[in-house]
Amino acid sequence: MRFFYSLVVGVALLLSACVGQKADNNNYKILVKNSGGDSTPALLSALEKAKSYNGKNVEIHFEKSTYLFGGDFAPDVYVFTSNNDEGLKRVIFPLIDFQNITINGNGAKFVFDGRINPFLIRNSKNIKFKNFTCDLVRSGHTEALVLDTFKGGAVLEMKPDFPFEIVQGCLMFMGKKDSITTTQKRDTYYIYRSMLEFNPQRNAIEYNVADVWANEFGAFRADFIGGRKFKLYNTNAKFKKGNVVVFSLGARYHSMFAVDECCDVFFENVTVHDAYGMGIIGQNTRNIVVDNCKFTPAKNRIVSCSADATHFVNCEGKIVLQNSLFENQMDDATNIHGIYERLAKIESANTFISELVHRQQYGFKTFAVGDEIEFVDRHSMITKTTAKIKSVEVINKQFKRIVLTAPIPQGVKKLDAIAKIRNYPEVVIQNNIIRNNRARGMLLNCRGKTLVKNNYFSTSGSALYFEGDASNWFEQGGVRDCTIINNTFENCNYAKGWGNAVIEVAAGITKDRQKSRYNRNIKIENNTFKMFDGTSLLKIFCVDNLVWKNNRVEKTTTFPPKRNLPPFITEHSSNVVLSK
Amino acid sequence: MRFFYSLVVGVALLLSACVGQKADNNNYKILVKNSGGDSTPALLSALEKAKSYNGKNVEIHFEKSTYLFGGDFAPDVYVFTSNNDEGLKRVIFPLIDFQNITINGNGAKFVFDGRINPFLIRNSKNIKFKNFTCDLVRSGHTEALVLDTFKGGAVLEMKPDFPFEIVQGCLMFMGKKDSITTTQKRDTYYIYRSMLEFNPQRNAIEYNVADVWANEFGAFRADFIGGRKFKLYNTNAKFKKGNVVVFSLGARYHSMFAVDECCDVFFENVTVHDAYGMGIIGQNTRNIVVDNCKFTPAKNRIVSCSADATHFVNCEGKIVLQNSLFENQMDDATNIHGIYERLAKIESANTFISELVHRQQYGFKTFAVGDEIEFVDRHSMITKTTAKIKSVEVINKQFKRIVLTAPIPQGVKKLDAIAKIRNYPEVVIQNNIIRNNRARGMLLNCRGKTLVKNNYFSTSGSALYFEGDASNWFEQGGVRDCTIINNTFENCNYAKGWGNAVIEVAAGITKDRQKSRYNRNIKIENNTFKMFDGTSLLKIFCVDNLVWKNNRVEKTTTFPPKRNLPPFITEHSSNVVLSK
Repeated sequence: MRFFYSLVVGVALLLSACVGQKADNNNYKILVKNSGGDSTPALLSALEKAKSYNGKNVEIHFEKSTYLFGGDFAPDVYVFTSNNDEGLKRVIFPLIDFQNITINGNGAKFVFDGRINPFLIRNSKNIKFKNFTCDLVRSGHTEALVLDTFKGGAVLEMKPDFPFEIVQGCLMFMGKKDSITTTQKRDTYYIYRSMLEFNPQRNAIEYNVADVWANEFGAFRADFIGGRKFKLYNTNAKFKKGNVVVFSLGARYHSMFAVDECCDVFFENVTVHDAYGMGIIGQNTRNIVVDNCKFTPAKNRIVSCSADATHFVNCEGKIVLQNSLFENQMDDATNIHGIYERLAKIESANTFISELVHRQQYGFKTFAVGDEIEFVDRHSMITKTTAKIKSVEVINKQFKRIVLTAPIPQGVKKLDAIAKIRNYPEVVIQNNIIRNNRARGMLLNCRGKTLVKNNYFSTSGSALYFEGDASNWFEQGGVRDCTIINNTFENCNYAKGWGNAVIEVAAGITKDRQKSRYNRNIKIENNTFKMFDGTSLLKIFCVDNLVWKNNRVEKTTTFPPKRNLPPFITEHSSNVVLSK
Repeated sequence: MRFFYSLVVGVALLLSACVGQKADNNNYKILVKNSGGDSTPALLSALEKAKSYNGKNVEIHFEKSTYLFGGDFAPDVYVFTSNNDEGLKRVIFPLIDFQNITINGNGAKFVFDGRINPFLIRNSKNIKFKNFTCDLVRSGHTEALVLDTFKGGAVLEMKPDFPFEIVQGCLMFMGKKDSITTTQKRDTYYIYRSMLEFNPQRNAIEYNVADVWANEFGAFRADFIGGRKFKLYNTNAKFKKGNVVVFSLGARYHSMFAVDECCDVFFENVTVHDAYGMGIIGQNTRNIVVDNCKFTPAKNRIVSCSADATHFVNCEGKIVLQNSLFENQMDDATNIHGIYERLAKIESANTFISELVHRQQYGFKTFAVGDEIEFVDRHSMITKTTAKIKSVEVINKQFKRIVLTAPIPQGVKKLDAIAKIRNYPEVVIQNNIIRNNRARGMLLNCRGKTLVKNNYFSTSGSALYFEGDASNWFEQGGVRDCTIINNTFENCNYAKGWGNAVIEVAAGITKDRQKSRYNRNIKIENNTFKMFDGTSLLKIFCVDNLVWKNNRVEKTTTFPPKRNLPPFITEHSSNVVLSK
C-alpha cells in the first residue's frame, strides 16, 4: 500500500473564452479579451490553448483594461507553500506543467474577487509575467480612520471597501459577497489578530508603535455607532486622530504568486497592490528574477500585501530583486532561506524519521534521493556532520523516513536539525526602494553569494536582518559571502520592535555562542546611515569575518529619539574589522 | 487541460509492525499485537498485508486490551464528507480500495490521540467492524462542573482531561500535546461556539435549556481562579449548581467512521464514545448496517459524539439501525437524506452550471452520466420536471457543468434545486434506544420504504423530524412510505428548541403550501406517548396521506409543563386520518 502526494483539482474545460491566436516564427500569441464580466473562463481557455502548443513560445496577452477574475469557474488545487497556510485553493492562473509562457498584461489591471489564489506556477519552466497590475476586490487586511479618542479607546470610521460587522461586541470582517448561513459561517470571515497604526501624512507606520494584539480568538471589543462608525475599546493602542488603523489578516490564505518547483521565472513591470498573504513565494525553484516591479498599496489604501512582499525557500540558481519598490506591506520585503527538519526518531543504524516542525512548512519537499544533508545542533546551530540520502519515504505532510547511504554518523541525535546542502543561490538585491512596511527590510539567510547594492531602506524595524534557528521558525540561514554596499538607510527602526540595529544578527543561537560562527564573511561598505536616534548601526553575534568600512553616518531630526545604544554591538564574533 | 479529483496522501510503508497470520480455508487472519506504544505502524502493516491477499476474506483482529493510535505514522488523505468539514486529514485506518475485510476488536478499546480521523472507508466492499470500543484521548467537546453561581455568571471547575487556558479574558481549549508557537497557533485550539447544560442526576440535558452562544469568534469571557477553577461570565445560561456545562466543538473536523462510496458496510457490537464530529457518516454507499452498537459517553464524561451519532447521504440499498443505543451525542441520532444542488447558470439549450451550495457538501459526488435528475422549485419544494444527464464536468468542489440528453425542460430556471432520482434505500430503524442527546432523534428524509419500529425515544427536541429544503441545508427529503409503529416516546421535547411536537414536519416550504405535498404516506400506529406537558404529539404541513391510529398517550410528572399546544397541528395536508 503506497500513496503519493498528487493534485486535488478540477478545472473548467472551456468551450467559450479566449479569442485570437496567431503564429509568428514559432511564437504564438493568444489574446484574452475583456468580456466585462468574469474573465476566468476566457483565461483558462487561453491557458488550455497555450498548453496545446507543447512548449513552444506562447505569449498570452491582454487588453489594456481592468479584468475581473472570479473563482466560480476556476479549479481547486491543494497547495503547500512554505511560510503560508496550506489548503485546497481556488486557483485562477493554474500554470502547472507549462513551458515558455509569457503573461503580458500590456498595462492591464487584474482584479481578483473572493478569497482565491490568483497565480500558482508549479513544475514549470521559463515563465514570464510582465506589464500588469494585480489587486483584490476585498483586501485581506482592513483599514479604519481614527476620528476621535476617549479614555479606553477611540471612535473609528471604517474606510469604504472594507465590510465589517459588530456582533455581540466583537468587531468582525467579512467579504463583499453574501454567504449562506451554515455551520461553517466562520470561514466567511476575514480573521485578524492585531492592529497596527499608520500615519497617512508619512504614508508609513506611525512612529514608535507596535502590533496591538486582539484577544487570542482574534477579536477587539467594539460598539457600533452608525454608518461606518464604531467605538473600539483598547488601552494599548496609540490612537492618534487622523491615523489609519490597519487590522492585519490573521491567516496567510494565499500568495498572489506561488512559485513551486519551477525553473526560470521572471517578473517584469508587475505591480502587486495586495495579497491574502505574500506577494511572491518561490520555493524549490531555480532562478527567479523580480525586475522593475512594485509592491505598493492601491490608491485609497495604506497597506499592500498582508505578509512579506517576496519570500524564497530552498531555491537554487539565482535570485534577483532589482529596480523595484517594496512598500507598505505587512511584513518583510524579502526573506531568503532554507528549511530545517528535525530528527524525530532513530529507527535503525542508517534509518531515521525526519519531521517538518513548523506548520507552515508541512508538505514541503525538502529531501530527495542523493541529497547531501547536514546535521546541526539545534541550540548552537553548529553543523555536526553531513551524510547522504539513499531513500526518502514520505509518511505524511509532517514526517518522512530517511535511509542514509551509510550509518547515521556518531553524535547525531534526536532533535538535531537537518538541512539539505544545496547549490545555494546567488542573491542580487540592487537598486530597490524598501520603505514604510511593517517589520524588517531584507532577511539575508542564504549561503550563496549575496549582494545588497544601491538600495534605499526606510523600514520600521531593522533594514537588514540575519536569522536562522531550529527551535521556532526552523528557517535555515547563515550567510557565507555577503556584501552590503552603496545603500542608504534612512530613519530605520522607527517603530517599536523588529530589531535594535539597522543591520542585525538575530539567529536563534542559545548555546555555545563562543564557538558558533553561524554567519560568515560579511562586508558592509560605502553605505549611508541617516539616523534619528541612538539605534545601533550594527548588532552581531556568532559572526566570523566582518568588515565595516567607508560608511557614512548622518543625523536627522525626523523623529524624537527613542534609543541610546552603542553604534556597534558585537558579541562572540571573530575577525571583525570596524573602520571609519 | 483537464484535472481530476484524486487522493492527496502519503502513507507509512512499514517493515515492522503486525504479527501473526494464518490461512484457514481461504480465510486469512492477521493479528495486530499491542506494543503498548503507538499501534498505528502495526495496524498499517496489517492493512498492507490484508491488501496483498487481493480481496480474499481477511480478519484483522486484536487482543482484548487498550490500543493507542497516534497520527505521526499515518497517511494524510483529503476527505470531503457531507455535513462535516472537508480537509486533508490524518487517517489511522485508511480502508481505501479494500474488499472482504473484517476488523474484529475482540473486545479491544481503540483510543485515538490527537485531532485525527480514525476510520476512512472509501471505495471498498464488504467491510465489517465488530467487537471494539472507540474513544479519543482528548474529546472534541469540553466539560466543566458548576460549583457556584453569582450575578452575571458562575464559578466552574473544569473536569480532568479537558485542557484549557484563559488568555486575555477568553476561555480557550486545546489538545493534550504541547505544540510549538507558530503563526498558526490557532489551529491547536479546540474551537467552540456554544455551551449546553447537562444534569448529571438524569445523565441528560437539563430541563428547559438551549444552546448558549459564545461571541461570534467562539469565546466566553472568563477569569482564572486557580487549579481548574474559573469564573465564567454569561447571563443567558441557567448555571444550576452541580450541573455539567458542555462546551460544544465548534467544527466538525473528523467523523469516527467516514464511509464514502462503499458497498456492504457492517458495524456490529461497536461502541463509539466520542468523535470530532459524527460517529458514522455514510455517503454514496450501498447497504450499511449498524447492529448492536452503542454511541455513549465514556465513563466520567456526559457527552458522546460532537455531532450526529449517524448520518447517511445519497445512499442506496438498505440502511439498518437496530438493537443499538444512541445517547448523549451533541446532535441527532440519525439523519438520512439526499443532496440538492442549485442551478447556477443556464449556458445553452441543454447545458447548465450546477452548484453545491452548502459548504459542508462541497466536493460531494452528486451526479454521474446517465443519472436521472429532478428539478425542484426551491420555495414550494414541488418537483417541476425530470431530465437525464449526458455528461458531467467537475469544475471545482463547488461547481459542475451538466449536459442533458435533451434540452433543459421548459420552466426550469436559475436557482431551481436539483437532486438525483436515486434507488432510494430501504430504511429500517428498530429496537433502538435514543435518549438524552441534544436536538432531535431521527430525521426521516428518505423516499425509500422507511420503518421505525420498537424504539424508545427520550430526546431533548422532537423524536422524529421530517426536514428537507433548498434554501439553507440543501438536504433532500420527502418520505414516500414511512411506518412508525410500536415505539415509546417518553418526555420528549424537554429542552428549549429543536421542535414543538414529538413527531414534526419541518421542511423548508415557504410558498404554495396549499399545493405542495412534500411528505407522503406516513403511518403512525400503536405507539406510546408519555407526555409531561402540552407539547404537540404531531405537527405536520404539506403532507399527503397520513394515518394516526391506536396510539396511546400517558401523562407523566417528570418535568413542570412548558407548553400547552393542541395535540395535533395539521396544515395544508390531504388525506389525514387521526383516529384514537
